[in-house]
Amino acid sequence: MGNDADTLMQADFVPVPEGGVTTPLGFRAGGLHCGLKKNGGHDLGAIVCDVPAAAAAVYTTNQFQAAPLAVTRDSLAREGRLRAVLVNSGNANACTGRQGEEDARAMRAGMASALDAPDHQVAVASTGVIGVPLNMAAIRSGIDRLKDRLTADAQGAEAFSKAIMTTDTVRKTACVRLDLDGRTVTVAGAAKGAGMIHPNMATMLGFITTDAAIAPPLLQELLRDTADETFNMITVDGDTSTNDMVLAMASGLAGNAELTRGHPGFAAFAAAFRHVCEELAKAIARDGEGATKLIEVCVAGASSDASARVIARTVAGSNLVKSAVFGADANWGRIIAAVGRAGQPVNPETVDVRLGDIVTLERSRPVPFDEEAALAYLNGDTVRICIDLHLGSGRATAWGCDLTYDYVRINADYRT
Amino acid sequence: MGNDADTLMQADFVPVPEGGVTTPLGFRAGGLHCGLKKNGGHDLGAIVCDVPAAAAAVYTTNQFQAAPLAVTRDSLAREGRLRAVLVNSGNANACTGRQGEEDARAMRAGMASALDAPDHQVAVASTGVIGVPLNMAAIRSGIDRLKDRLTADAQGAEAFSKAIMTTDTVRKTACVRLDLDGRTVTVAGAAKGAGMIHPNMATMLGFITTDAAIAPPLLQELLRDTADETFNMITVDGDTSTNDMVLAMASGLAGNAELTRGHPGFAAFAAAFRHVCEELAKAIARDGEGATKLIEVCVAGASSDASARVIARTVAGSNLVKSAVFGADANWGRIIAAVGRAGQPVNPETVDVRLGDIVTLERSRPVPFDEEAALAYLNGDTVRICIDLHLGSGRATAWGCDLTYDYVRINADYRT
Repeated sequence: MGNDADTLMQADFVPVPEGGVTTPLGFRAGGLHCGLKKNGGHDLGAIVCDVPAAAAAVYTTNQFQAAPLAVTRDSLAREGRLRAVLVNSGNANACTGRQGEEDARAMRAGMASALDAPDHQVAVASTGVIGVPLNMAAIRSGIDRLKDRLTADAQGAEAFSKAIMTTDTVRKTACVRLDLDGRTVTVAGAAKGAGMIHPNMATMLGFITTDAAIAPPLLQELLRDTADETFNMITVDGDTSTNDMVLAMASGLAGNAELTRGHPGFAAFAAAFRHVCEELAKAIARDGEGATKLIEVCVAGASSDASARVIARTVAGSNLVKSAVFGADANWGRIIAAVGRAGQPVNPETVDVRLGDIVTLERSRPVPFDEEAALAYLNGDTVRICIDLHLGSGRATAWGCDLTYDYVRINADYRT
Repeated sequence: MGNDADTLMQADFVPVPEGGVTTPLGFRAGGLHCGLKKNGGHDLGAIVCDVPAAAAAVYTTNQFQAAPLAVTRDSLAREGRLRAVLVNSGNANACTGRQGEEDARAMRAGMASALDAPDHQVAVASTGVIGVPLNMAAIRSGIDRLKDRLTADAQGAEAFSKAIMTTDTVRKTACVRLDLDGRTVTVAGAAKGAGMIHPNMATMLGFITTDAAIAPPLLQELLRDTADETFNMITVDGDTSTNDMVLAMASGLAGNAELTRGHPGFAAFAAAFRHVCEELAKAIARDGEGATKLIEVCVAGASSDASARVIARTVAGSNLVKSAVFGADANWGRIIAAVGRAGQPVNPETVDVRLGDIVTLERSRPVPFDEEAALAYLNGDTVRICIDLHLGSGRATAWGCDLTYDYVRINADYRT
């Protein structure tokens, strides 16, 4: 899933292809079927840390927020440290009123009690059907069995990854290693999500673990900044779930000197952290419902990074661009039309558009190109759209996927 | 295409089902094949007024605006009066640089010369392929033949309607009559558009004719306000063309006392004008690419009308809502998720959602409903989604269509 830009940055860290959320020191994980999913698949999972890990989270901006988000916020507000996160799939515990809040609190209390930890050291997350009360008996007995099955090996990480899946077709994990103060530090993550939202059975969830020593406030800043450039730059269908959440936990057991912005290795750690988030984000976009291709939209020359971000997301989210990519149609007209409606500064006379290496528009004038070469490029599994506005130095990258018959099939037939 | 709200307002005006843009006094129209469309269909049309008509226009907000828009703006800026509008389909004359501007000017000059009118009394519009120079020889010989075929009857209006079509599957016209000062005033319109944008072959264009006496500035205000509540409230795929334009022409030949905001009949005229715009807008939404159903989203109880407008458009534009409607899935979860991400004030505890008359959510709590009745309702050709936020008195209505396999097929296969 790497690209050229990644390769340049990988001098500072090394991918660990077989790694997962249990690879960083101090973490165990697991997952099992507790009874929420009708198909018998894993539907309850947890990541547990041997010590209270520095923790941080970012949440959906949707105004309807599911009950578990409020409970997790409450936990993190205490001391910013977590022993565990407990996640169920199959039921979003959203639009469930007061009962839903009580159930989310009971999930937290159940896990805390199993670990002999205070409630506020446990976070919870849910994904699945909206508007249906949680089956708490299933969750309670699930926690009882889960607490003895948590392992620090690859099996534990894999079981957790499975337990958070809904319409996902592949598990999504990433792991990298780097050297800090002569110690090996590992950053890993697991994520789920196949559409930005399917109120009946999905959501985007991301979980990052690391054994780096870093205090909660700096971890929170890093997560927020990184999420803005990774998880917040993917779009499958422009919708935003009521349950989206990305949570990071840092055990500190790698033994590096605590990270600060002044630490000589901070940039390398931030790059490794960003790489993990970006790999997970791209994996989610590529696994978009019905998708056959990853679309990467790179905007340069915008009036600011923020402006580039809006434009990149608008292009990546355009149904017409997404349909054209599905049809392997080098339709630059749809690309500039999306640029033009993004509401950002643009000089209509100075726009370049490339599809991979194929120049289709230069200074807003069509450039004749080899249609067969374009077709071959657009039939690949990753399509890169590069836009240069020649206006300023703002840059951003967004990721999306093509719009296919299967997206319509999945979302038309979903609930019934 | 009427609904309950229309019926209430129709006391002031009477629909003229067989009417078209030539029904108001003073207008002739026509259309023919000049050579731009490969399939031999009509691709050049005009509406001509016997007198310089008061005129007004609203344009796309896309920053890439096609050459004809600049030329039409220039015409209207002179005295706000038009003798004619000349429209071609098959070529958008967009992203065609200086040559495109010269061609748009030449189109205008050719029509003006045929009518012996000054250039600035002619407007031009184009829709079709982007980035390809106009075949001006075809346009010039087309104008020569067209000027003798303009008629004030239904055939003229029909030929014009055909000449502006691209991927449209039906012609879109509307016409109403009302009484002003004892005189019969007629308002009519024609429109095209099947997606908000298909840079290679579409765009939304609307043309309103009336024989009411009204000065250009008031007509411009009325058109702007009305377009905000009608044409600007439809969404097929969230994209916005480089060529969108709605143009109104008022001949004044009905003989009413000139309309002012103080005229006792102004409200009735505004209602009639709005009805024509709304019927055209709904017809465009219903004919959205691949669409099988019209979706009407009514928002009430918002903090303001502007806020209601954003929410209504967000719901009508949600791919997940659109897919659910295609699948006849009473998926209220997707509806409130779209409400929640619209970025507008919402109380997550007080939202009602109805599908037609079927209550699915009351004060944000799920209400059990008859799934079979919901299925039957959602299988109809018009689906009305009503949302009450119980927050204020803001209201708005938006129109869209379902997202279908055919949308993907049309837009994936389009250019190739």
